[in-house]
Amino acid sequence: MKISERGQKVPPSPIRKLVPFAEMAKDKGVTVHHLNIGQPDVATPQQFFDAVATFPDKVVAYGHSLGFATLRKAMAAYYQRLGYDVQVDHLTITTGGSEAILFAMMAICDAGDEILCFEPFYTNYNGYAVQACVTLAPVRCMVEDGYHLPPRAQIEAKIGPRTKAILVCSPNNPTGTVLRRDEMQMLVDIARERDLFIISDEAYREFVYGEVPHTSIMQFPEISDRTVLMDSLSKRYSLCGARVGCVIAHNPDLRRTFLHLGQARLCSPSLEQHGSIPLMSLGDDYFKGVQAEYKRRRDTVMKGLAEIPNVQCRTPEGAFYVMARVPVKDAGRFAQWLLTNFRLDQETVMVAPGDGFYATPGLGMDEIRIAYVLEVDRLERAMRCLKQGLEQYKD
Amino acid sequence: MKISERGQKVPPSPIRKLVPFAEMAKDKGVTVHHLNIGQPDVATPQQFFDAVATFPDKVVAYGHSLGFATLRKAMAAYYQRLGYDVQVDHLTITTGGSEAILFAMMAICDAGDEILCFEPFYTNYNGYAVQACVTLAPVRCMVEDGYHLPPRAQIEAKIGPRTKAILVCSPNNPTGTVLRRDEMQMLVDIARERDLFIISDEAYREFVYGEVPHTSIMQFPEISDRTVLMDSLSKRYSLCGARVGCVIAHNPDLRRTFLHLGQARLCSPSLEQHGSIPLMSLGDDYFKGVQAEYKRRRDTVMKGLAEIPNVQCRTPEGAFYVMARVPVKDAGRFAQWLLTNFRLDQETVMVAPGDGFYATPGLGMDEIRIAYVLEVDRLERAMRCLKQGLEQYKD
Repeated sequence: MKISERGQKVPPSPIRKLVPFAEMAKDKGVTVHHLNIGQPDVATPQQFFDAVATFPDKVVAYGHSLGFATLRKAMAAYYQRLGYDVQVDHLTITTGGSEAILFAMMAICDAGDEILCFEPFYTNYNGYAVQACVTLAPVRCMVEDGYHLPPRAQIEAKIGPRTKAILVCSPNNPTGTVLRRDEMQMLVDIARERDLFIISDEAYREFVYGEVPHTSIMQFPEISDRTVLMDSLSKRYSLCGARVGCVIAHNPDLRRTFLHLGQARLCSPSLEQHGSIPLMSLGDDYFKGVQAEYKRRRDTVMKGLAEIPNVQCRTPEGAFYVMARVPVKDAGRFAQWLLTNFRLDQETVMVAPGDGFYATPGLGMDEIRIAYVLEVDRLERAMRCLKQGLEQYKD
Repeated sequence: MKISERGQKVPPSPIRKLVPFAEMAKDKGVTVHHLNIGQPDVATPQQFFDAVATFPDKVVAYGHSLGFATLRKAMAAYYQRLGYDVQVDHLTITTGGSEAILFAMMAICDAGDEILCFEPFYTNYNGYAVQACVTLAPVRCMVEDGYHLPPRAQIEAKIGPRTKAILVCSPNNPTGTVLRRDEMQMLVDIARERDLFIISDEAYREFVYGEVPHTSIMQFPEISDRTVLMDSLSKRYSLCGARVGCVIAHNPDLRRTFLHLGQARLCSPSLEQHGSIPLMSLGDDYFKGVQAEYKRRRDTVMKGLAEIPNVQCRTPEGAFYVMARVPVKDAGRFAQWLLTNFRLDQETVMVAPGDGFYATPGLGMDEIRIAYVLEVDRLERAMRCLKQGLEQYKD
């Protein structure tokens, strides 16, 4: 029985495909430092568990397709504190930021349409593009530029008659780059002049370390009819498994479509929505503590990378990722070798090969993504493993 | 800014679109008996809440994309107790039965492909078909036949070169019909001879009332490479808001695709998966209690319908729905009128108009779906409202 071409094309996760080799190493008693996946080790705020424990109903019933009214209200207040014009009606709660991607692509694109994006990019955009029968048109960003945007002409060269939107992610996964206001302004200008939507993935909003402040697409109200903000509680509140995110749009046609897409899947998970409500009022203190911890981690990783010969990277301004060019021909083989062959005091390190973050075949083969989601002392050990691994590895 | 045609085509929920009129009635102090939505009032088993309370981790982390290993094992054991060949590897946990529909359609169909289904059908198949760019080819079932399958020739007439699968739901939403073994056998024969997949939605498996036993697609191991079983915990354990379901396939290509689709959305909600584990070992006693209660409710509704002149329906053998032909021209207008104009002792009833369960325009206009998800005395009052409403209503 032949399955669909679409089914065959949905890519496996490049971040997860080395997991079996990590399992084998662990089975042999090896400690694997996981720098491969953006899973923070920071504890989920206790307020979440406390709220879940007070779930008031005897029946875990269908909720509203747009999300719990209480949570939507609390979320809108969070955005308003940031100074954004986000009213409750603009906001649809999604089952994780993942569903936000699906909703945005479905609402904006028909089969065969294109979305301009910047590579390297968050790998799951690929999976959703295949599902939605959308083509990603990637504009390349370079490690030498710290993965900031290339000149406008290079971006506009990728816009064709089927291009419907620009997809941007800042602070960026996988590069950690935070776009400057003038870069966002350039995208806004292009979108207006070329009649495109902007889909802005801001899941890492709170993870910025002082060099470049975060610029949200909500800070450009003059194009509010053509913007979709995608967000997620996963990283902000160390809540990855809860699957709570949202899409925000002012455009009434988009909002109506999000409602209908939401109705098709009925509702997002109830307990996690209920648990998330008090998190929306966590103040600056919470984020400042998290930021300080991640800045220490970032600086630890950058120090470690600086000590390895022939590694190219720039200090990323946000998120908790660094993308680096390393002196190997095939980072996927290198990452696998680290798990299967390399040991330093019975430890090794797991990184994500770079090619999975590109749409263009052949790119990223000599890059790796490091997620600095471990405590500083573990990160130091992990970076020692990476350094020695690169010294010992033969292509 | 123009959104996609797909976005415009995703239909609103016909079950939920009358909600604002119900809200207005409630605001005026009217009691609305909700027969419009399949939301059981049965309490979620306490074991679920107890398990959630013992969630062992400090971090609500990403789970495995296929679902929690513990839950998959417990689910496989549940199916094995039913006598089905379901091993852990056959089973992918989905975010509700809703996501199971999406995964099945995506894995089997490319844009432009067709799925044969039987109308009236579960309305959200429509929404997912639009999302997946799939066309539903409906074969009509008739109230006079109790919505059982038409002769084989009528089914085969709908199979074209782009038909990839037969989608069947038994016990059925919205009709309550349970297909006999010979009907399932006919679909199996057609699938084999015409080289089609069978997608079998069995979310209501445990809701059968003695007339026709449930036949699962898993009881036809001779075509196990071309079947997908879609399931949900929502109805079985009164767990609609938890969003836990699954897809089961033996075909390795399908299973690999489900894994990749699962990786794109990372994981299903953690707390609800954890909470669901003990439910999988609830035994016959639990289901017998639930069945007895729903049988009483069904019989209450059927007795009520029998007392209304010019209503056509057959006693459904399962699920908790009845589809009935009523003497009105436009059941949507009638349903709205019940909410806005009709009152019996400050009470009224909300039903789902039938046309939303059809793909063929014009069908179902004189049908309604009743979900018997209320206690018997409330159902009796609801049926009195329906009877008097039909007597008073003028088209």
